[in-house]
Amino acid sequence: MKHVTILGSTGSIGVSCLDVISRLPEHFAVGYLTTHQNVEALYEQARQFRPKAVAVVESSDAGERSEWRGRFKSLGIEFLTGAAGVEELAGRDDVDVVVNAIVGAAGLRPTLAALTAGKTVALANKETLVTAGELVASTARQRGGKIIPIDSEHSALWQCLEGESLASIETIILTASGGPFRTRTITEMEKVTVTEALQHPNWSMGRKITIDSATLMNKGLEVIEACWLFEAPLRKIRVLIHPQSIIHSMVEFVDGSIKAQMGTPDMRIPIQYALSYPQRLANKLPRLDFSRWSTLTFQEPDFDKFACLRLAYQAIENGGTAPTVLNAANEVAVHAFLDERLGFLDIPRMVDSALQRHQNHRAADLEAVISADQWAREFVRDELRRAPY
Amino acid sequence: MKHVTILGSTGSIGVSCLDVISRLPEHFAVGYLTTHQNVEALYEQARQFRPKAVAVVESSDAGERSEWRGRFKSLGIEFLTGAAGVEELAGRDDVDVVVNAIVGAAGLRPTLAALTAGKTVALANKETLVTAGELVASTARQRGGKIIPIDSEHSALWQCLEGESLASIETIILTASGGPFRTRTITEMEKVTVTEALQHPNWSMGRKITIDSATLMNKGLEVIEACWLFEAPLRKIRVLIHPQSIIHSMVEFVDGSIKAQMGTPDMRIPIQYALSYPQRLANKLPRLDFSRWSTLTFQEPDFDKFACLRLAYQAIENGGTAPTVLNAANEVAVHAFLDERLGFLDIPRMVDSALQRHQNHRAADLEAVISADQWAREFVRDELRRAPY
Repeated sequence: MKHVTILGSTGSIGVSCLDVISRLPEHFAVGYLTTHQNVEALYEQARQFRPKAVAVVESSDAGERSEWRGRFKSLGIEFLTGAAGVEELAGRDDVDVVVNAIVGAAGLRPTLAALTAGKTVALANKETLVTAGELVASTARQRGGKIIPIDSEHSALWQCLEGESLASIETIILTASGGPFRTRTITEMEKVTVTEALQHPNWSMGRKITIDSATLMNKGLEVIEACWLFEAPLRKIRVLIHPQSIIHSMVEFVDGSIKAQMGTPDMRIPIQYALSYPQRLANKLPRLDFSRWSTLTFQEPDFDKFACLRLAYQAIENGGTAPTVLNAANEVAVHAFLDERLGFLDIPRMVDSALQRHQNHRAADLEAVISADQWAREFVRDELRRAPY
Repeated sequence: MKHVTILGSTGSIGVSCLDVISRLPEHFAVGYLTTHQNVEALYEQARQFRPKAVAVVESSDAGERSEWRGRFKSLGIEFLTGAAGVEELAGRDDVDVVVNAIVGAAGLRPTLAALTAGKTVALANKETLVTAGELVASTARQRGGKIIPIDSEHSALWQCLEGESLASIETIILTASGGPFRTRTITEMEKVTVTEALQHPNWSMGRKITIDSATLMNKGLEVIEACWLFEAPLRKIRVLIHPQSIIHSMVEFVDGSIKAQMGTPDMRIPIQYALSYPQRLANKLPRLDFSRWSTLTFQEPDFDKFACLRLAYQAIENGGTAPTVLNAANEVAVHAFLDERLGFLDIPRMVDSALQRHQNHRAADLEAVISADQWAREFVRDELRRAPY
């Protein structure tokens, strides 16, 4: 029996994670749950899964907090608040795996807290590695913590590399659906609406990552993540457009052999693998039907049309705090797009400006990372104020 | 440095194997070489690769044997003859891997000799497992011998299973090109010529296996081989037509995740893997070009049109000596087809008759296997005499 903490349990990945746990009650139990602000949903989850404690980052006022504390207490569940509460639960010792399903750069500190406690982190929060790869990797190394990816692409790579040596990697081939605008012209993309951008062809995900998938920034962040997870230099990582999202990624080895991991686009498969690793557990999830997916296609990505992908390559190439700035500027720009305060193609423009204006420096400690992150957010907010959409 | 014996070094796989060795001289050296009767080619190989000894199964007369013995001796190479010579070299102790690239059921005894000596056998001779799977598996188990597949499909499965447990296999998906007659009707197939049947769409191989690929018997034999190699019951093995032959096979695991192994259709990749296993060694073989292979397709096999596949499933289902009979009857029928003494669709008809007339029994010892094999060959030869084509 593995005890699992879920940070961000009320989001898309968090809910899928609880679904996986509920399907395998003889293998998994919930340790702790946290949410950003969706305390009602957290309470329902807590009633079903009976965590030892929960944490809520934001709650409206002291009265409300006290009321919820009472309701959780009547279930026998401790109630913590604030980012500090989440970090405390992330580092508690009586669990086997900490799932980090927090959205955005807010996921960094809890990842560090869990790794510092020597925990295994099942990581869905890619910003953790994008924004602070060096720091996270060195923390894991020093404290005996371990990262297992949950992202379908990195889970695919992780699976392909099981039993293989990292030294035998020739190329990491990250597949990308190409998003909803793969076949549009750049002129058409200028006028994309929020509703259109939220229509992902294959995956059902949260709003932020869905926009990142439409700009291909998501793939760019994944390239950076892959560099850190698999200790691979950028030149070994390649993006291949595969509109069906059936092959989740591939590894080409030095002997010319390629391994690919495939499956239905269902996040519960990589989530379960991260929880059960190194074992595989039988489940009843729908299987891939080759009569439905009888044709798989591939094409090269268009770096002009999807400038975010180019910017991500550039950021990791520059190293230091450039990926931190890329990620933070993108987060603010995406939220501005979702609020209809910015056009679709203004997202890469904004990120590009931030990267150009940023004074790059090393990102080996949390202060350096946080200051670069904050600088980039402020920069984009300033730009938004200066030239309203 | 690994020393490698190649049984059947002058055939298609044998030649590719020597090519692999010549490209990696710091990793591999030749131990022993054998041929069925192509002594001239063997001599040229011996001059280049300097084995300690060679063996030739058939040579025309004593005078010729004596002359060749002298020529090899002047290179410092021992010269053995007959099937006994091959078996002796197969079991010699001073090599690391024995490649069995012999064509047909003649490969069985040398495999047993190598496994009895506790050697690692890199197996291209699928008839070894088809015809005597139980015996071969128990010999390997008892004597500490080991089998690594060379067949591209089984190598793919072997690679997909690296680091995984056999217990976590849900389905083994053997891909099949479908051969040159995939899109023909059964009526058209009745009149297929030898030349047409020898045109394999993707792979360049020996004549026997090319015909087996056209009838899909090759895939049937591979199903049987997979049962023994991966200790999988027949119900876990599925054939999927994949005309491009880029995905060499796949494993679907109990958690719904699928791993596939892919690559250019070049036998040197699986041969090298079998020799270097568990390591991978860098090479300069051509890499898979996704711009050339931008579309991969899949479809279900037609068991009516390709009766050999159905017969192979039936034979393993019946067990005992039925697979032995399937294989032996097929060998004689294929050679009769190549000699234009039998029509293309008469191959499965002949195999079917043999299976129907055979008194099935256990196949746990060599005598039982050999007697069933001989019975089936005689049966088909009798049929050919009784009703000449």
